This record gives sequence, C-alpha cells and structure tokens, in this order.
Amino acid sequence: MDRERIGMAAREAAAVLGILSTDERNAILRSGAEALVRRSGEILQENAVDYEKALAKGMSEGLLDRLKLTEERIAAMAKGLLDIAALADPIGQVSGMTTRPNGLMIGKRRVPMGVIAIIYEARPNVTSDAFGLCVKSGNAVILRGGSDALCSCRKITEILRDAAEEAGTSKDIVQYVDDTSHDSVRELIQMKKYVDLAIPRGGAGLIQRVVTEATVPVIETGVGNCHVYVDEAADLPMAVRIIVNAKTQRLGVCNACESLLVHEKVAEEAVPMIADALAPYHIEIRADEAARAIVPALMPATEEDWGTEYLDRIISLKIVPDLDTAIRHINRYGTRHSEAIITENYSHANTFLARVDAAAVYVNASTRFTDGGEFGLGAEIGISTQKMHARGPMGLEALTCEKYIILGNGQVRPD
Amino acid sequence: MDRERIGMAAREAAAVLGILSTDERNAILRSGAEALVRRSGEILQENAVDYEKALAKGMSEGLLDRLKLTEERIAAMAKGLLDIAALADPIGQVSGMTTRPNGLMIGKRRVPMGVIAIIYEARPNVTSDAFGLCVKSGNAVILRGGSDALCSCRKITEILRDAAEEAGTSKDIVQYVDDTSHDSVRELIQMKKYVDLAIPRGGAGLIQRVVTEATVPVIETGVGNCHVYVDEAADLPMAVRIIVNAKTQRLGVCNACESLLVHEKVAEEAVPMIADALAPYHIEIRADEAARAIVPALMPATEEDWGTEYLDRIISLKIVPDLDTAIRHINRYGTRHSEAIITENYSHANTFLARVDAAAVYVNASTRFTDGGEFGLGAEIGISTQKMHARGPMGLEALTCEKYIILGNGQVRPD
Repeated sequence: MDRERIGMAAREAAAVLGILSTDERNAILRSGAEALVRRSGEILQENAVDYEKALAKGMSEGLLDRLKLTEERIAAMAKGLLDIAALADPIGQVSGMTTRPNGLMIGKRRVPMGVIAIIYEARPNVTSDAFGLCVKSGNAVILRGGSDALCSCRKITEILRDAAEEAGTSKDIVQYVDDTSHDSVRELIQMKKYVDLAIPRGGAGLIQRVVTEATVPVIETGVGNCHVYVDEAADLPMAVRIIVNAKTQRLGVCNACESLLVHEKVAEEAVPMIADALAPYHIEIRADEAARAIVPALMPATEEDWGTEYLDRIISLKIVPDLDTAIRHINRYGTRHSEAIITENYSHANTFLARVDAAAVYVNASTRFTDGGEFGLGAEIGISTQKMHARGPMGLEALTCEKYIILGNGQVRPD
Repeated sequence: MDRERIGMAAREAAAVLGILSTDERNAILRSGAEALVRRSGEILQENAVDYEKALAKGMSEGLLDRLKLTEERIAAMAKGLLDIAALADPIGQVSGMTTRPNGLMIGKRRVPMGVIAIIYEARPNVTSDAFGLCVKSGNAVILRGGSDALCSCRKITEILRDAAEEAGTSKDIVQYVDDTSHDSVRELIQMKKYVDLAIPRGGAGLIQRVVTEATVPVIETGVGNCHVYVDEAADLPMAVRIIVNAKTQRLGVCNACESLLVHEKVAEEAVPMIADALAPYHIEIRADEAARAIVPALMPATEEDWGTEYLDRIISLKIVPDLDTAIRHINRYGTRHSEAIITENYSHANTFLARVDAAAVYVNASTRFTDGGEFGLGAEIGISTQKMHARGPMGLEALTCEKYIILGNGQVRPD
C-alpha cells in the first residue's frame, strides 16, 4: 500500500471537493447512480468471483446473502445515491454570527472534515453508501472493505471514480485500498497527516481493533446491550408490546433489546406476561432467582449475562427494587446505545431521561427506533456510542465540522 | 495511584453532579471561591514549598513567575470561579425537538460528558480554572498537574473538595492525582472505563504525549503556526498594524503570528514597511530569496522555518505569486489554528475563508483574537486544533455532549 500516494491524492481531491457547490456535488452522486446501473453487468461479473470463492470457503448463509449482488440490489445502491443527493446540504451553513463590541463579526461555518477513511467488511453496498454520504458532505473518502468482497468493492469504486471524472471532478474523491493484508488497515488508520476521521463499520471485533490501533480520530459505532425497564407504574400491556418489538422485530441489530429490568411491585404480573409473549418467538429468557421464583421455567442468568449483547434469540431479565437500582444497573452494564423506560409516572420518566447515560433514552417506545431514517436524518453512516463529536445515529452533519470565520476591518488586540 | 478507587469515585460523583440544578452547581463554585480566599494562607504556605524547590533546582524566571502565587493571584482565581458561576448554563438545553409521523417526539438534550481528566504543568491557577469549568458544565474532574507545583495544586484541590462538601455535594467531584511519576499520567489517560475525556493543557511536548498515549478521547489543544497573508489588494498600512499586533502583542502564545506571506505585486512596497515596523520590537525576520532581494538585511529562511512555531522574537516571510499559492502554503505548513488574509478584494476574502483549513480564519484582523474571552465564550479551557467535537476556543459547551431523548406513547417499529 502506497500510503503517501493515496494520502496526498485524497488530500488534493478533498481540497477541490470542499469548495464545490451543492449542485456540483449532487451531480457527482447522480453520475455515480447512473453509472452503477449502466455498468451493472461488470459489477455482477466481479461479484460472482467473490461469491464463488466465499462459497468454496464455506462462508455462512447469512454472510453469503450480504455479499451477493443482483440487478435489483445494484438498482437499490443507485437509488441510495439519488436519495442522498436529495437531502439538504449541511455544508456552508453559518451559525451564531455576532458582532463583538470592537466590530469584529464572528460566526461558525460548517465545513467538510476533509478526508474520511471507512473500514468495513464483506458488504459491497457499503462502498456506494459511504461514497454517497462522504461526497455529499464534501469529503474525500478512502475505502477499505473486507477481503471477501474485494473484487466487488474494487469494481464499484472503479465505476464511481469514472463517474466522478465524467461529472468533471477528480477521480480521487474516492479511492479503494486493495491491499487485503491486516497491516493495510493499521497503516490507513495511522495516516495522521492525511486522514481526518476513520469510521469502522462492522462487527465488534473490527470496531475494537480500529479504536485501539488508530492514531487518527475515530468514531466508535455499534455495540448495543440495550435495556427495557418496566417501571412499577408501567402500562403492562404496552410494556409487553414494546418488549416483543424491541427483542424480536429484528434480532441481529445493535438497537435490539438484550436485557429486561422489572420493578418488583409489578413482577408477579409482568414476568409471566413477558414469558408468554416471547414464547411464540422462541426467545430464551435468562433470569435472576427472584424472577425464576415467579416463572420457574426461565433459565438461570449468570453475572456474565448482564453484560452480553446476544444478537440472538436470548434475553436476560432481572427484578429490581426501585428506579434507582434500574438506572445504576443500566449505567453499569449498558453500552450507552439505546435504553427505554415503560412508565406512566411523570417523575420516573424524567428521572430516567436525566440519569441514564446513553445515546438514545426512550420513554414508552421501542429501542428499535434508534436509526438515522427513523430519526429523520435521511441517511446514516452508523450509530455512534461515544460522546465526543457525534452521539447516536450519524447523518451528514456528523461528517462535518465547524470553523470560526472572523470578518474585521483592521482590528488589533489592545494591551 | 489507585486507578479503580479514583475512577469509581469520580464516576459516582459525576452521576450526582450531572443532575444538580444550575443554582446548585453555581453554589459549589461560590463556595469554592469563598474558601480559596478564606484559606489563602494555607495555599501560600504550600506554594512557598514549591517555589523554594523550583528556585533551588534553577527553574527559569518565566516558569517561576507562573508558579508563584500571591494574595492577589488567589483572589483572581476566586474571581474566576465567580465569573464562571455567572455564565449561562449549557446543560439541559433541548434542541431540534420534532414530532415524527408516528407521533414519537425526538430531540437532543445537552448533558455533561461525565468525568474529565485535565493534565497540566506547573501553573497552580489551572487547578481552580479547570475545576470551575468542569463543575459548571456538570462534570467530575480528575486533575494531574506538574510535579513542580504539587504542594500548591494538592492544597488548592483539598480546599475545593472541602468547599464542595460544605455546599452539600460529594468531595469527589474534584480529585487530584498526587503520584508524580510519568506512569500516572499514562494510567489516567487510559482509564477508558472511568474517564470520558482528557484535555492536556501545556506545551507541545505534553500535548503530543497525551494524544499519543491516551486510549480515552482527547481534545488536542494549542500549537499555533499562524500566518498573516498580505494580498495584492491589501491596505498596506492596515496590514502592517495587524502584523505588528499579531507578532508582538504577546510573544509566547499559540495565536501569535509566526509566518508572513506577501503577494509579489505588493512585495516591493510591503516588505520594507514590515521590516521597519518590526525593527523596534527586535523581531528577526527570516525571509526567502525574493524578499531578501528587496531588503538584503533580512536573515535567510530554510525549509524548516516554514513549519516552525517560534514563540519568540522571530518571524518567517515568504513572497508568493498568487492567492492559490498562499492558501496551499498555509494548508501545508500551518497547524490549523488561526490564519489571516489582509485584503480589500471581496472574492479573495471569500476564497481564503472557504479554502483555508483552520479553526479560525480571519479577514483584516489580528490572529491574536482567537481566545474564548475575545470570542464571547466567557471562559476557555483551551483552543482545540482538531476537527472532531470542538474547534477553536473551547467554552463550557465543549465540555458537554448531546443525547437523544425520545418520548413515545407505546410506539413499536413496524416490519
């Protein structure tokens, strides 16, 4: 991997891209969408190579499905780019412009980050998604996908590069690192001189590796050990509906519920209701002794269960004596992703909102709503579980920053 | 250093502090201010111990002056706390609350980061400044000052802890790491479980060490290789006034000007004017060959000069053929701190504002204004030169983050 060449090319392209108008950036996205559809045959050919290899290697069915492209899926990628083109442009907004007593006008202008590196796994569609979000927000992007999708991702990038050129800008607004060695990831996330931000998209292993090894700024995404707390003042039928949705609507996602807390005053009634409601979905409930005293058929939970993101047909359940214990439990074992209270009590709802430390804190709704689309951001590059810069679903604005602009007429600082 | 004990105590204190009202947090600051003045004798006694040691060790006059406390300086620290108490409270603001089509109300609430670590050098006043800014913004703070100020900082912290208790809250909202080994800094900035943010305050060496060794999020502050570019359309007398101010008003600060760029069309006139204006301040000008052809008495610059933050009576000067070259030079050699153009040309001003990549970009004003007070932030914890989270002077808001709050009435996510 030629770090200097890739880095300098990205920096140069970012400088050009950063001053294009909204219309010009949207034209690049439309050119990309058109090219993906027009050249879908080439993509399918390369995707077949990846797929055959993965099949021979014994890749699991779920992963194979994510790797596989079809005409329809390519059309969806193209539509994704057109959808991003239709979003409002965050770049150039000036906020808080005020005139200081000495006449200086000071405000903040929203600008691109510069160069963004996206590290992902064997999902070819992330290639065009990341391209769309980065280019719309005025950033050059360096992509590094998983080796199992190399041929697909490389071809998609080639087509997007050609489309950028056809739209009159530099191909290097998007580059693909086709060195599949593990070293190439580390090199990419240590290019302090050239990379302004790295975002890992994938499983917990990939994310932790990027967070640990990076020297460039990273936004940590994804892991969600999300709780639903059934308060003593909960509407129990509502609680059960929300729990079923939060656990079962989609199993393998970071905003799925992994752990239940139930107030002891309603446990006698609530625990059997929850067990009955989850039974048709074949969800195993791992519960503490107090809950098992109510429904003996539940499996026993261990300390490890409280901290586990199952992403599977398993959920943990604990009975708590009060709201304070529930909040402390969540702040101790949660991953600061999405947490919900079910209650009709005004003060309990407010206390939960104030004290739970998470990117998204809910009253009386399913944790499954933590999502860029559901939050109205239009598109999403991931869900941040860190506190710096961006928290929760990250839309276009998370890929930008603000710089101060100061307009003077000769002001100097007095002694 | 007992990491677990300090970390858990900070986490507990942060949970308490995070839900205090504005009035309650201000009361802690006022209690601290009162205690500093009342117990100034104790502080002066401990400061004398530090001072004697530093003197014996041969500390430079400048550093000795920063270490030295007096009744007046302690009164100024106390006033600093009262000033922070008078600032608007960023905590609790809810922004962008909207109702989604399904009836969910979604907004962002500004909340404290949690636990902040401040690593600094031998300036005892940073102890109370950092305490004030962190507590006002609802954060517990762990302090680690330089070993030369150990006795002073430990005593100031002890007084602030007592004052916190007198105000009815936990002492542990502020803790001091009195282990002066280098290891203790590393341990502190790797306490991922307990520390939400680390901010180094001090010289380039300290900052780079913290940025490199930390595993907790860090805000990089401080280094400023700031430029003033004299455009072909500059008002030259204004340019000279601004250059003199930006270079000489205070020498050893990060927003001082370290490098000049002059358009070749005005160089014949501007370079002698600049040389004459800086001469009374004994500023050495290190210039390229083209400038030395105009004023032969200037010293020759080397490649290294373009990238140097002197913090001294030295400035570099280069003649450039056009605006584009000036911008590229700044983006290559600058440290993304503060950059200024002097011009009467509308398009040149706009191009400079758009293309220069820095925290603060100026038209026709001195770079010396990059400062929390001058920008109207009221107080400042440092000047960020990174792009993530906060850029430029950081006031109270930089010590906070936003979490999504979602108010529902039973919503579940449909398939």
